[in-house]
Amino acid sequence: MKPIIGIDIGGTKISICLAKKDGAILEKKELPTRLRADAKTSIKEIIDTVNLILFQHRLSPNDIVGIGVSVPGAVSPEKGVIPESPNLPGWKGVRIKDILRKKFRRPVFVNNDANASALAEKLFGIGGKVENFVYVTVSTGIGSGIILSGKLLNGASFSAGEIGHTTIIPGGPQCNCGKRGCLEALSSGTAIAAQAKRMMEAGKFSELGSYKAKPGNGRLSAEIVADAAREGDPLAVQIMRNAGHFLGIGLANVINILNPEIVVLGGGVMKAGDLVWKSMEQAIKREAWPGPLKVCKIMRSKLGEHCGDLGAISLVLMEQ
Amino acid sequence: MKPIIGIDIGGTKISICLAKKDGAILEKKELPTRLRADAKTSIKEIIDTVNLILFQHRLSPNDIVGIGVSVPGAVSPEKGVIPESPNLPGWKGVRIKDILRKKFRRPVFVNNDANASALAEKLFGIGGKVENFVYVTVSTGIGSGIILSGKLLNGASFSAGEIGHTTIIPGGPQCNCGKRGCLEALSSGTAIAAQAKRMMEAGKFSELGSYKAKPGNGRLSAEIVADAAREGDPLAVQIMRNAGHFLGIGLANVINILNPEIVVLGGGVMKAGDLVWKSMEQAIKREAWPGPLKVCKIMRSKLGEHCGDLGAISLVLMEQ
Repeated sequence: MKPIIGIDIGGTKISICLAKKDGAILEKKELPTRLRADAKTSIKEIIDTVNLILFQHRLSPNDIVGIGVSVPGAVSPEKGVIPESPNLPGWKGVRIKDILRKKFRRPVFVNNDANASALAEKLFGIGGKVENFVYVTVSTGIGSGIILSGKLLNGASFSAGEIGHTTIIPGGPQCNCGKRGCLEALSSGTAIAAQAKRMMEAGKFSELGSYKAKPGNGRLSAEIVADAAREGDPLAVQIMRNAGHFLGIGLANVINILNPEIVVLGGGVMKAGDLVWKSMEQAIKREAWPGPLKVCKIMRSKLGEHCGDLGAISLVLMEQ
Repeated sequence: MKPIIGIDIGGTKISICLAKKDGAILEKKELPTRLRADAKTSIKEIIDTVNLILFQHRLSPNDIVGIGVSVPGAVSPEKGVIPESPNLPGWKGVRIKDILRKKFRRPVFVNNDANASALAEKLFGIGGKVENFVYVTVSTGIGSGIILSGKLLNGASFSAGEIGHTTIIPGGPQCNCGKRGCLEALSSGTAIAAQAKRMMEAGKFSELGSYKAKPGNGRLSAEIVADAAREGDPLAVQIMRNAGHFLGIGLANVINILNPEIVVLGGGVMKAGDLVWKSMEQAIKREAWPGPLKVCKIMRSKLGEHCGDLGAISLVLMEQ
């Protein structure tokens, strides 16, 4: 039972873990993600950290099954070159697969982070019997990984599952991607914070006005809006409900197109609780077609904080 | 090279053909679709017609590869029982697969009509090299068949590809399905005719007012609107452009979710020409995510009038 190295490269931190095949994390270390000119330093730090973990566990590279690397954006699993991504400026073109393979002489598997999480759901979450499901992460952005007939749908240019940029309200609020009315511009953490800011600036009464006293350098975050909603702030309640409502429409569209067995939801916004969940469910029930709706379970991800690590190691496990 | 029997059951007619493996139609006969209490008569007529065709070509059932049957609605290919469908009242529960198998003692393959057309595209249209594509039919209703990794996506309850009932405008125009703002309520032939009627009743000036003199018992059809648009009627032009615009948004959503190599479009409304096509393309370009958009070709189906027949025989050919 050789262990696996998982590397989850995110916009703010890089998580590197050593794990067993059953998903038990033996070791986990985090690095800050260096951007732009410093990206090369991050690569060196990743290699050093993998070496350190192996050393601490008295392992040589030959003692591991392989290395799984999850990255943001549309990446070719075959080439394993980091794509252009707003979350990783300066990393574009980094041949992460080749670099790690040459260094450690073990198989390296690279894929998108949402895809990796979907595989983790299959292996460690909803279970291996489910052959057709969609994993959706609602966080700073909104992404998804699609599993059909037990296999990941990569798509013709490795960007299948971009549900965050499906259009929910034509001509609606501006999205960071340049389009308007995208799901991500309506239901992501970013959208929730922006909406709260906009409405308070427009003079809507809200206890949210006290958020400057809270942690986060006075920056209004989705977490603060969620907290305020839980405390009963009416504006915050409305904003969280709206986010859930539009999320439900987006998911209903996915359900109508793919007719999956399960939609499983992860990411920070889904921790906000029943306010988002209930209005999301209502919208799904109203907008999804009865046939696909009847068979589709909507579930919360149970992977928790290790979702990213489990995703990275799943990229190796799925190829065994 | 044994031939194949194809049976395409639609809401107004049933087409029965004998065809070669290369798609050459050797014989084709049409029956009116009997609804409700007369459905059983239709079944008998189908059997009689298959027997007649076999007799005329001096064939016994053993001389054919099998029988492919396409039907509207979400049908289990394994069970082959006709599902509830607004287009086939009275046919629900007809065990078409068992009936034909017992009668002719040959393999019978049943699937949804849009799925069957997608397979026909793979075999006789865009070509077998394309592994990931979506066939969309824009006609009285809007449906699609999805091919991923060369195989049909049936979905957990056999209703994958219901893009006609994805929500394009939340709370928008009423759809026949009971929901609001569905793609089908915005871009189908039914929607085009309804929109023209509504706008004329609201007093909008249009040459369409003369439609009562045209064929079709004074019933305003999408075809009449398309004709008027081609003659330059400004209201008709606007309606056709709007239909194309919303179709483009719906297709962009599909492109963002599935990242297909090709979207191929068939059905009567797509014959309406450049008015629909251009505004559809513009909307796709604006609403699709750049990565998936760049690799996705948007094409017209070249299957033509035999699309339904080729679909039915493809159900047999794909299983060989």
